[in-house]
Amino acid sequence: MENLTSMEKSVIPRKTVYRLSLYHRSLQKLKNNGMKTVSSSALAGAAGVKSTQLRKDLAYFGSLGTRGLGYSVEDLSKTLTAVLGTTHLQPVILVGVGNLGAALLDYQGFERQGFEVICGFDQDLDRIIEGVEITVLGMEQMKAFVQEKEVKMAILTVPGTAAQEVTNRLVEAGIQGILNFAPTVLQVPEHVVVNNVDLALELENLSYFIS
Amino acid sequence: MENLTSMEKSVIPRKTVYRLSLYHRSLQKLKNNGMKTVSSSALAGAAGVKSTQLRKDLAYFGSLGTRGLGYSVEDLSKTLTAVLGTTHLQPVILVGVGNLGAALLDYQGFERQGFEVICGFDQDLDRIIEGVEITVLGMEQMKAFVQEKEVKMAILTVPGTAAQEVTNRLVEAGIQGILNFAPTVLQVPEHVVVNNVDLALELENLSYFIS
Repeated sequence: MENLTSMEKSVIPRKTVYRLSLYHRSLQKLKNNGMKTVSSSALAGAAGVKSTQLRKDLAYFGSLGTRGLGYSVEDLSKTLTAVLGTTHLQPVILVGVGNLGAALLDYQGFERQGFEVICGFDQDLDRIIEGVEITVLGMEQMKAFVQEKEVKMAILTVPGTAAQEVTNRLVEAGIQGILNFAPTVLQVPEHVVVNNVDLALELENLSYFIS
Repeated sequence: MENLTSMEKSVIPRKTVYRLSLYHRSLQKLKNNGMKTVSSSALAGAAGVKSTQLRKDLAYFGSLGTRGLGYSVEDLSKTLTAVLGTTHLQPVILVGVGNLGAALLDYQGFERQGFEVICGFDQDLDRIIEGVEITVLGMEQMKAFVQEKEVKMAILTVPGTAAQEVTNRLVEAGIQGILNFAPTVLQVPEHVVVNNVDLALELENLSYFIS
């Protein structure tokens, strides 16, 4: 399961992979509550999806449940950890240590999910907010750091005007996945994946739906 | 255009509304650069979507362009502002002023997009980080505040364990849209919309796609 090729991965919808994370998280909770097995409908309910959806999603990875018995919490959890690539703590860098960046450096939620933000980078080390507990280096040290530590993922919290240029440097250094908070459409080569977290856009979307 | 009923709104896909925000933002940039008209392909390119997609999205709101001339930057921008409900600065509250919440209170990006975070709420006012420049009140004052100021939108940055209970209180107070940062599936009545921003889940999704 750990050895899906990139071609096999590319046929699996992005939305399915998001839901795998939700299933994985729900399984952790069930495990903490001492549960050994779970039905597809109960797991779907915990993750907030329909059980037909859950069965369809898990079918991409072969039949993982037993009819009448449901899924083994332990086995399915291990499988999803392997599929999602979070078996080991993944190193991540964060670029742009302003207000939002500083908060994310301190955010505890990443580590619980298998990610360790190991270093921040900024072009102006003088303005770094006090109290940030993680090392912050200058931008000129980024490439060497990424290559030495073999970092593949970056969180981008620079202003929109700087986002594309910094992205080019990240890609050149060998970064393959970028979590982008800048309100900018980033241009990247095909082997690089960008997920956008656009807070103002989320609010605007809400605004549309309320009366 | 401002007067779409909720039934008309409900037939428009959520993804389309997200893209309207992207078009809107691209139009602002074009306007700042002094452009008067824009072709659908140029606007689509700026927003990072295909022009067939753009034409399909805008068709939900009637034909807004002129064949051969494209769209009036000013007119389309105004229409989208009205559709998205950001004609006036929308008041928003933020609940849970920890690290992430404090950073979002100070985040400049919201106001540029038509949202004003007018107050924070927390159950423990003693732990509020120094330097937060917006008023933070106790949770017990939330309901009266929301009703008095007719606030419809809330940003939720409380821990996952508290998220559902706080959500119930928000809904009771009259909040109709919640931007949820807690890694929890929130249960809300049908008239309330929740957008989830799940940072660990975004990283896990990236992790899956990198080799």
